[in-house]
Amino acid sequence: MIIDCHGHYTTAPEPHNVFRNAQKAHFKDPSAPAPLYPAISDDEIRESVEKNQLRLIRERGADMTVFSPRASTMAHHIGDERVSQDWTRACNDLIARVVGLFPESFIGVCQLPQSPGVPIAHSIAELRRCVGMGFVGCNLNPDPSGGHWTAPPLTDRAWYPFYEAMVELDVPAMVHVSGSCNTNFHATGAHYINADTTAFMQFLEGDLFADFPSLRFIIPHGGGAVPYHWGRYRGLADMLKKPNLREHVMRNVWFDTCVYHQPGIDLLFEVIDIDNILFGSEMIGAVRGIDPETGHFFDDTRRYIDALAISDADKRKVFELNARRVYPRLDASLKARGL
Amino acid sequence: MIIDCHGHYTTAPEPHNVFRNAQKAHFKDPSAPAPLYPAISDDEIRESVEKNQLRLIRERGADMTVFSPRASTMAHHIGDERVSQDWTRACNDLIARVVGLFPESFIGVCQLPQSPGVPIAHSIAELRRCVGMGFVGCNLNPDPSGGHWTAPPLTDRAWYPFYEAMVELDVPAMVHVSGSCNTNFHATGAHYINADTTAFMQFLEGDLFADFPSLRFIIPHGGGAVPYHWGRYRGLADMLKKPNLREHVMRNVWFDTCVYHQPGIDLLFEVIDIDNILFGSEMIGAVRGIDPETGHFFDDTRRYIDALAISDADKRKVFELNARRVYPRLDASLKARGL
Repeated sequence: MIIDCHGHYTTAPEPHNVFRNAQKAHFKDPSAPAPLYPAISDDEIRESVEKNQLRLIRERGADMTVFSPRASTMAHHIGDERVSQDWTRACNDLIARVVGLFPESFIGVCQLPQSPGVPIAHSIAELRRCVGMGFVGCNLNPDPSGGHWTAPPLTDRAWYPFYEAMVELDVPAMVHVSGSCNTNFHATGAHYINADTTAFMQFLEGDLFADFPSLRFIIPHGGGAVPYHWGRYRGLADMLKKPNLREHVMRNVWFDTCVYHQPGIDLLFEVIDIDNILFGSEMIGAVRGIDPETGHFFDDTRRYIDALAISDADKRKVFELNARRVYPRLDASLKARGL
Repeated sequence: MIIDCHGHYTTAPEPHNVFRNAQKAHFKDPSAPAPLYPAISDDEIRESVEKNQLRLIRERGADMTVFSPRASTMAHHIGDERVSQDWTRACNDLIARVVGLFPESFIGVCQLPQSPGVPIAHSIAELRRCVGMGFVGCNLNPDPSGGHWTAPPLTDRAWYPFYEAMVELDVPAMVHVSGSCNTNFHATGAHYINADTTAFMQFLEGDLFADFPSLRFIIPHGGGAVPYHWGRYRGLADMLKKPNLREHVMRNVWFDTCVYHQPGIDLLFEVIDIDNILFGSEMIGAVRGIDPETGHFFDDTRRYIDALAISDADKRKVFELNARRVYPRLDASLKARGL
């Protein structure tokens, strides 16, 4: 079975986006009408998914996608905590409906109602609500400011109340920033990749997993710059007098395969242990075109993995078994269906 | 001949550092004495270099190192413009002395007296002064705030006056940030690599080289995350309706080889044109230890290149000819010596 750990609902029905725009307008100018969330029919949701993600899932041959709200529009920096709470709830409810309509193809991961300067503890209730709806993980934004990086590092105790909830609920987090309001950082070309690299280095510099031995993070986009600079990180761990990375970080951190060319995937599998790699594509995401060098979609990452000279047992780890370990609630859900 | 394009004077004599600390103390508390730059003897400089960089250059077999002040202590975010001007002048003068003592082994690249919010035009005089002393390039900090990223992107017209001077003087810039005062970013483990990735994406998103066809940048540390995510960047260029990267960015941008393990170097050479790669080691820099997996120093990057299955002609490009194209003043200086 093939589990894609990294899918976002980038094709949500238009009324959902219209609501968001009205919400932003109302925040800017409270005399503008406060929007009510629109009625969106099952058919609209079905169409938005069947024509897009589901079509590609079938074409490319995946079975289950771990599905979360569109990352770039989480935009925790827009509005205030109330705006973030309302928007997050709407986004997660929509994911729940997709999962309800296509339970064999999707399982939910939630957005969190983060907001700059607001304690992360305020996001626990939404995590619990979503887990109650069958979600199996969350996307945690290390920079709710959207490119100004005003929050403390992920190893800071300020994050601990949320980690305690993650451990209690036995759910992992994907470290995933959202859009950037800093003109220095293109969202998908700089901010995303920088955040991945930054999070890894924070874990390396800190000692978070001594405090939370069962806490689990997925660092997406192939771990940012980390595998390419694996020698640098091994060397820095040594200079900072940390244990080797396998012990110190990689018991608790996984990288996905959202690396959109064969040489990058080759490197990822060369330097990172097979047990730390999860299949992911983030399809209909950052890079939607066809690679003129291959004639295939850049984000059709399954092709790159299929082209690797690795054993079937290793492929099964990357496509299925690792994900079932990282997301125990996904594993339980599959087992309940006899899968 | 082997030219290392990326060396910093990380081993400057202690009085130089004492001056810096006194300068910072005086800025914090103007009642503290304003320091005078100390007398540093030629012997002190000789010793600081001979025991360190020069010893390793000899052991590893390089000929010429493009040498600049220590990057992490440029610290443009500390003090104000006056502090940055004074410190920068002192750092560049020290480089000039190293070059004067070892002209066969070092050639200078200057630090700039950048300061957050201060127009980059204020750095032109120091660039001219250093070029007048025989320097062949500069290190340009895209984030003088030290991790808060408050400056405009490198493609913004605010930078243009400086680019005009670079073009007039025919010198390239290495895009190089300094230390980080943002706790999110470890300097050498996150901030450096993020800045490299960010600069590349700014060049991709913008159209700077249409305005400055002869402007040249070195993006250090192997181009940050870029080669690992080369498919992503090719795909983003396509989505942003830009020409292909070879035309759009890579006529004006070079990556160095400061990637501290063989698989990373293999990837760099697989995806980036040989004409765009400059040999660099940044030795006695970010990662100073010995790789237990190889028994050699992580930053002995010549070994990784020697291990590549590339032609001697290609090796010569990476070790020498590309650098002579990117730094015409280095080329002229070598030619004047019959090299």
